Amino acid sequence: MGLMISGGTVLTMSPRGLIREGGVVVEDDRIVDIGKTTGLKRKYPSYERIGAEGKVVIPGLINTHTHAAMSLLRGYADDYPLREWLERWIWPLERHLTGHDIYVGALLTSVESIMAGITTVNTMYHYIANENEARAFSEAGLRGVVGHVCFSWRKEEDRKALRSLAGDWHGKAEGRIRVSVDPHAPYTVDPEYMRELREITRDLNESHGSPEAPITWHTHIAETEDEPEKIKQAFNVTLKGGVVEYLDSLGVLGKDILAAHCVSLTERDIKILRERGIKVSHNPVSNLKLASGISPVPKMLREGVNVSLGTDGASSNNVSDMFEVMKLTALLHKGASKDPTLLPAEEVLKMTTINGAKALLWDKEIGSLEIGKKADLVILDFNKPHLRPVYNETSHLVYSARAADVDTVLINGRILMEKRELTTVDAEKILEEVERTKDNLLSRLASEG
Amino acid sequence: MGLMISGGTVLTMSPRGLIREGGVVVEDDRIVDIGKTTGLKRKYPSYERIGAEGKVVIPGLINTHTHAAMSLLRGYADDYPLREWLERWIWPLERHLTGHDIYVGALLTSVESIMAGITTVNTMYHYIANENEARAFSEAGLRGVVGHVCFSWRKEEDRKALRSLAGDWHGKAEGRIRVSVDPHAPYTVDPEYMRELREITRDLNESHGSPEAPITWHTHIAETEDEPEKIKQAFNVTLKGGVVEYLDSLGVLGKDILAAHCVSLTERDIKILRERGIKVSHNPVSNLKLASGISPVPKMLREGVNVSLGTDGASSNNVSDMFEVMKLTALLHKGASKDPTLLPAEEVLKMTTINGAKALLWDKEIGSLEIGKKADLVILDFNKPHLRPVYNETSHLVYSARAADVDTVLINGRILMEKRELTTVDAEKILEEVERTKDNLLSRLASEG
Repeated sequence: MGLMISGGTVLTMSPRGLIREGGVVVEDDRIVDIGKTTGLKRKYPSYERIGAEGKVVIPGLINTHTHAAMSLLRGYADDYPLREWLERWIWPLERHLTGHDIYVGALLTSVESIMAGITTVNTMYHYIANENEARAFSEAGLRGVVGHVCFSWRKEEDRKALRSLAGDWHGKAEGRIRVSVDPHAPYTVDPEYMRELREITRDLNESHGSPEAPITWHTHIAETEDEPEKIKQAFNVTLKGGVVEYLDSLGVLGKDILAAHCVSLTERDIKILRERGIKVSHNPVSNLKLASGISPVPKMLREGVNVSLGTDGASSNNVSDMFEVMKLTALLHKGASKDPTLLPAEEVLKMTTINGAKALLWDKEIGSLEIGKKADLVILDFNKPHLRPVYNETSHLVYSARAADVDTVLINGRILMEKRELTTVDAEKILEEVERTKDNLLSRLASEG
Repeated sequence: MGLMISGGTVLTMSPRGLIREGGVVVEDDRIVDIGKTTGLKRKYPSYERIGAEGKVVIPGLINTHTHAAMSLLRGYADDYPLREWLERWIWPLERHLTGHDIYVGALLTSVESIMAGITTVNTMYHYIANENEARAFSEAGLRGVVGHVCFSWRKEEDRKALRSLAGDWHGKAEGRIRVSVDPHAPYTVDPEYMRELREITRDLNESHGSPEAPITWHTHIAETEDEPEKIKQAFNVTLKGGVVEYLDSLGVLGKDILAAHCVSLTERDIKILRERGIKVSHNPVSNLKLASGISPVPKMLREGVNVSLGTDGASSNNVSDMFEVMKLTALLHKGASKDPTLLPAEEVLKMTTINGAKALLWDKEIGSLEIGKKADLVILDFNKPHLRPVYNETSHLVYSARAADVDTVLINGRILMEKRELTTVDAEKILEEVERTKDNLLSRLASEG
């Protein structure tokens, strides 16, 4: 038996475009039909219906860069200078995080994401066997790529964690969970370790991956201007060009890499990003908040680089809200380039749907509403003052819609939220556990000295 | 009989600071007591209660720059070059706007504002006697300053409209409505007319205003870099310095002026803003979307200029959402100045409460929760995933809270929304009227040729 969403305006984000009075038919975890509601009703008369009259149906949003567990630190420290923020606030607290804390933080991000219409989350954090982000995503019903972040100072620990992560989680939870290898950044992962992580990724793909569902890379690249200097200080390597050019010289670049930030790039760097097929995740909220700079997104798009969007972790954002990220992306580059035609709504909506899917090498299954793809979709209620009148749905989605306008969410064909009621998790209980976990964390920090 | 809001975290935005387990007592239109809930319960045992457990109580937000009627054009045209946007899209449609359209647009903005925790709106638009923005605000229960925008090309019409507006509305609707004289901009109002509008303002104050409730000015200043060039083209005046310096040379500046935008300023301009006590309304969403530039807000704040926040009209924003404006203000100046300590949350929250009240010369009555002030207040529900855990309420209000987290709103002591249910207007009916009004407007445009 199946399910039919009917009577809504369907933005497929495929060549098929927008369908008014449209519907989407779901069987098990997949979309089996799309079209005008009238025709679908005749073809599937007995299917359970979700009425979407006055509503807009879009593919689930894809957040291509975050650290899901860090929502446990939301609002803990803001407005500090970068070094003080990290050294006095974030790192001392993070040192006390247990596997349970990571699990609870990721569960909080899962609930927040689902309620905001985000159906796929690409997260980089520390993997700890029993309690971790993958388990949280799996339980909440979210789709995601879960990575383990690697540093030169803990290679042996990383190797074990990566093996365990890939074996435990890649392709699990009805295929909703994939895993990635996450070199933290070019200034924290030495050249030799970078190359070794490339080999580890190949090995893990041989044992656990497949061409349809590969184990990918997720890393930070060129987040700040001083990254070449940091690389030099860390590994005594003097860069001849930009950071991307440096990584290319190591022979580690490939089309399976999701590079977060890419704020400080040379012209040559941008060309290499395109040539090597690197996928960029743009995180404007985080980049502004941490004063990292403004990524040359319009230039990358002109060069044909695949740019998707990310929130970054709650310590530098502070929310998992892709509607906010979409609007800021549309605004910021107009303002920074003094050109009001840059990053139009249609393009920005692509960045957080189909281009997000491409970024994770998952676009055969998600990122648009097409027959045969997984049923990850979001229904927004447009019957709100700030979404009226309606001249153009795409404009409203980018410039006016808010996370709270998300009414109903399906992931993998399963209804996770209907009329803003969560169906898979008890949000009240999770929020209580979040406060308790935070209190325990602060106690451990206080008793440290 | 009175009303008591009890058990919440009260951010007074006064020297009293934050009160946990706090309460606010309201009699008629005023705040009569503030303090710990336990004490208040003893003093006012029989007062009707609004429980605010797990919630945060703040002064109503103040939007110091918009064109309320323009929400009727929300999403009508985005992503165009400025001239094409105005000449091909906005102006042709605006020419067909009737008094009824203006009233309906302003009613839409009123509902949207109340639902977003905005209790005072400073709006500039065309005043038409019977149906207008003031009537919409009055009916919806909103507080606001309603202006009539003046241009050199329609002086006689303006003079009449200003007299009518001041006589009909200043101090009306239980004192919730005040009026302003709104010279459009230095490039559309010639020097002689600027001076005349100053005299008109003085005359109107003598007949309708008072020192406690003055008729003020609301104008656009220095929105774009090319404003000196526009002034030269319009009036054949060559500026020796910046636009503020030019206005000062006309002798028209005073502490009753709300200047929207102030993007393109000289150092001398900023000093004059401070010396003359001009109030600035910063509109970062609009400035980025129209690619106008980035206002030197940190510099103005250092010089001691009163900077408040505005959304601008729906054609350049596209929503009335001060939470969005607050977060973008906090982010943008950190990013633009490469300093993550600029515009901390506390300062931004002041900009949209007490400094907004000062901007409108209304701070004796609104902008903070203090005994004797008008009861304009907002209760936010913090029991949401994106507002947990709670380390710091002020951080959450600026970096994480959304308009939809506003639970309950009081203006002038009257409950306009309780648990997100509007009490004074029928939102459903208004939204229907909005669509009908839009359809009629588009028909008139289509039948024009």
